[in-house]
Amino acid sequence: MIRAALSAFLVLVVACTDGKYIPKTGKRIPQTLSRGWGDQLIWAQTYEEALYWSRSRNKPLMVIFHLEDCPHSQALKKSFADEVELQRSIDEEFIVLNLVYETTDKHLSPDGQYVPRIIFVDPSMTVRADITGRYSNKMYAYETGDIRLLMSNMKKAKKLLKSEL
Amino acid sequence: MIRAALSAFLVLVVACTDGKYIPKTGKRIPQTLSRGWGDQLIWAQTYEEALYWSRSRNKPLMVIFHLEDCPHSQALKKSFADEVELQRSIDEEFIVLNLVYETTDKHLSPDGQYVPRIIFVDPSMTVRADITGRYSNKMYAYETGDIRLLMSNMKKAKKLLKSEL
Repeated sequence: MIRAALSAFLVLVVACTDGKYIPKTGKRIPQTLSRGWGDQLIWAQTYEEALYWSRSRNKPLMVIFHLEDCPHSQALKKSFADEVELQRSIDEEFIVLNLVYETTDKHLSPDGQYVPRIIFVDPSMTVRADITGRYSNKMYAYETGDIRLLMSNMKKAKKLLKSEL
Repeated sequence: MIRAALSAFLVLVVACTDGKYIPKTGKRIPQTLSRGWGDQLIWAQTYEEALYWSRSRNKPLMVIFHLEDCPHSQALKKSFADEVELQRSIDEEFIVLNLVYETTDKHLSPDGQYVPRIIFVDPSMTVRADITGRYSNKMYAYETGDIRLLMSNMKKAKKLLKSEL
């Protein structure tokens, strides 16, 4: 039975790779939109898409700027992805976008284009410059130990949104 | 030996899902940037990123507008993903971006915002309005039978680029 299941698995793998393009440098792992920040979340691809979802679903937008080769980004990403309550809240109450390139909208870099940087945007399309981390020189930076602060800022983004309606 | 390998596999699966966030509606398949248009290609996430890569690597950019629930998009996607020579050429000679939402750049919709629609952009950041499909009312539309025309247009995008330098 196990042998039969294994054979079926091998046949399937061969059938799926047969005749498909494979780069000279070898097969690649498909890129994900989550980039490791939460594979179970629904990620917007672009800022335009994220703004559209935020407006139409009346949910605050969280934009994460990061870089694959930045150790601070990587460390924050791990804490972010592993925090179940944070992931649940994002999935149910936020629109989320992670970017490794800057957009043309300067409002998303109120005090510079450093990473990691997390900016909240209201469904009214107002960048929430008042929702900041703990660093006065990089106001929208978070470190791996700042996950609680980030979650408290998420509550702020939700609460103010409701009180402003 | 097979039994041992299977046990190791089961342990790994359990270890990987343990303590991770799972949506109420059940586990989701992570979203890919390729969205099925070629899992082995390196996809830009946003138009800004694609333009940056196109300029810095001096490669023409191909922008594919499509929709997940559009049967014409789905049919073209299948032909596109299955055509090994097309995939190789894109991987080696183009920058590629697929979008399910429009951008704010009106140059990318010279004759409307229909899907599927494929627009070429020169590394000089000029939208190649002269590289069109076979339909006069939707000049940048391609159907599943138009893959050869698309590949000929890709040659055009490369050739004119070089002759203009």
